[in-house]
Amino acid sequence: MTIIDGKQTSATIKEEIRQEVIKIKEGGGKTPSLAVIIVGDDGASRTYVHNKMKSCEQVGFLSTVIEYPESIDEATLMAKIDELNKDAEIDGFIVQLPLPKHIDENKVIEAIDPSKDVDGFHPINLGRMMIGLPAFISATPAGIVDLLERYNIETEGKHCVVLGRSNIVGTPVSVLLSRKSKPGNATVTICHSRTKNINEVCLTADILIVAIGQKEFVTGDMVKEGAVVIDVGMHRVKSDLTKSGWKLYGDVKFDEVAPKCSHITPVPGGVGPMTIVSLMKNTLLAMKRRAAE
Amino acid sequence: MTIIDGKQTSATIKEEIRQEVIKIKEGGGKTPSLAVIIVGDDGASRTYVHNKMKSCEQVGFLSTVIEYPESIDEATLMAKIDELNKDAEIDGFIVQLPLPKHIDENKVIEAIDPSKDVDGFHPINLGRMMIGLPAFISATPAGIVDLLERYNIETEGKHCVVLGRSNIVGTPVSVLLSRKSKPGNATVTICHSRTKNINEVCLTADILIVAIGQKEFVTGDMVKEGAVVIDVGMHRVKSDLTKSGWKLYGDVKFDEVAPKCSHITPVPGGVGPMTIVSLMKNTLLAMKRRAAE
Repeated sequence: MTIIDGKQTSATIKEEIRQEVIKIKEGGGKTPSLAVIIVGDDGASRTYVHNKMKSCEQVGFLSTVIEYPESIDEATLMAKIDELNKDAEIDGFIVQLPLPKHIDENKVIEAIDPSKDVDGFHPINLGRMMIGLPAFISATPAGIVDLLERYNIETEGKHCVVLGRSNIVGTPVSVLLSRKSKPGNATVTICHSRTKNINEVCLTADILIVAIGQKEFVTGDMVKEGAVVIDVGMHRVKSDLTKSGWKLYGDVKFDEVAPKCSHITPVPGGVGPMTIVSLMKNTLLAMKRRAAE
Repeated sequence: MTIIDGKQTSATIKEEIRQEVIKIKEGGGKTPSLAVIIVGDDGASRTYVHNKMKSCEQVGFLSTVIEYPESIDEATLMAKIDELNKDAEIDGFIVQLPLPKHIDENKVIEAIDPSKDVDGFHPINLGRMMIGLPAFISATPAGIVDLLERYNIETEGKHCVVLGRSNIVGTPVSVLLSRKSKPGNATVTICHSRTKNINEVCLTADILIVAIGQKEFVTGDMVKEGAVVIDVGMHRVKSDLTKSGWKLYGDVKFDEVAPKCSHITPVPGGVGPMTIVSLMKNTLLAMKRRAAE
């Protein structure tokens, strides 16, 4: 049984990006530049943004954070997006979600220039991905595909079961893995809250991708011997077992499931660290596409 | 066993649209208007366009055909698209595919104003559909969903197997049926040329949607008792059995499969007639959305 080390893989990819950026700069190219808009004081959002900035620094990107209070009106936010769309210095930018309820998230996302939408949330990037055109792939699906690729896990002709149909994980990863590409070419089943006999379906999976948002939902009896299990869940629970007083759990009951797997991602240290790497890859790609125009 | 009558269903929906258009006109509203661009002399394309125009007439829409020779250059076509995008009289328009090889189809499709893209081929419409935002759904997937709905076929919690992952049928219909909506909420498996043990997978289907492009691919031994079978295939074969000298076959071996089904679509007269109806529905919707702006 191999534990898929997302922390190590993300460090390797970051180093590859760092080396590429050094070469680009040496060749007189532009330093990739990412901007992040954050609205309000949500602690988790602030941590995510902080980590994104730190990663930018590690790989040699420029980064900018634009902060707004919770009370910001939609028009001001839209004006800033318009400004970033036009700013030739900025290769890509994201608006950290969630936004306050008085702001229409879909409207905000659709206002981002798709060529700078390094989160890959703009519908045109989802649609382009769906039909196999060049697109920014959103962070978690891209991170999952990267892990499968880096660990040489064959997907062609395999039965891949995806638990969860969210817009940012389940649905796009199911499309990605069924596409005619590598990784890809899998037979994909997408399951969700309305799926009957979900245990039986899981038992048929060669590759099981779990993004159902329920702590330790997948138990040992749901997994076939030799399966590959990718756990996207992240549940922070108070605990006396750790120094921090918190323990992280995934959507998979790791101790039960791991012994049956050929490969499994842990939580933490599996899919999580890969998501920031995907953002860095997209930003680099955005810069290169703009430079090639 | 019920044969799903696409011809009758499409006639019913057309009549509903015709009645609605009469009311809209009586209320002083705009007559929906569809334009179709056709390039070259392909016989099948001409027949399709002719049928689309005829349907427009039947439901009370205005319609325009814009014809170009095979030799047209991309810039001229793009200029016409730009003109139609700006033309307030035109609610929706389509470019009949395929286009000659010297023209970039993807570029042409992305040039269409998404709010007039009544074929639903623009990536932004695919992406919006994927995340459940209002969108134009392309003709065949929309027609399939309409048939399921009109025949009160429950999809929630059912296992729906889709054979084929094309951009215009298999992939979008798999997304539509897995979405949290009605029809929808199905557990969906998407199969294709790289799928192993495709017969076994088909046997688990409560609803089997076949868009694999191979004449009579699905045989009796691949279908579960009581399944619903939707056949998207269309193969025209020379035949001594018909007056026309041609016989149409689907992707399903109808005589073998039908006796096992609870519902099945025939070829011809199943999904086929529904596709034009979807185009009419989208054009009406485009008009209404423009009027509401």
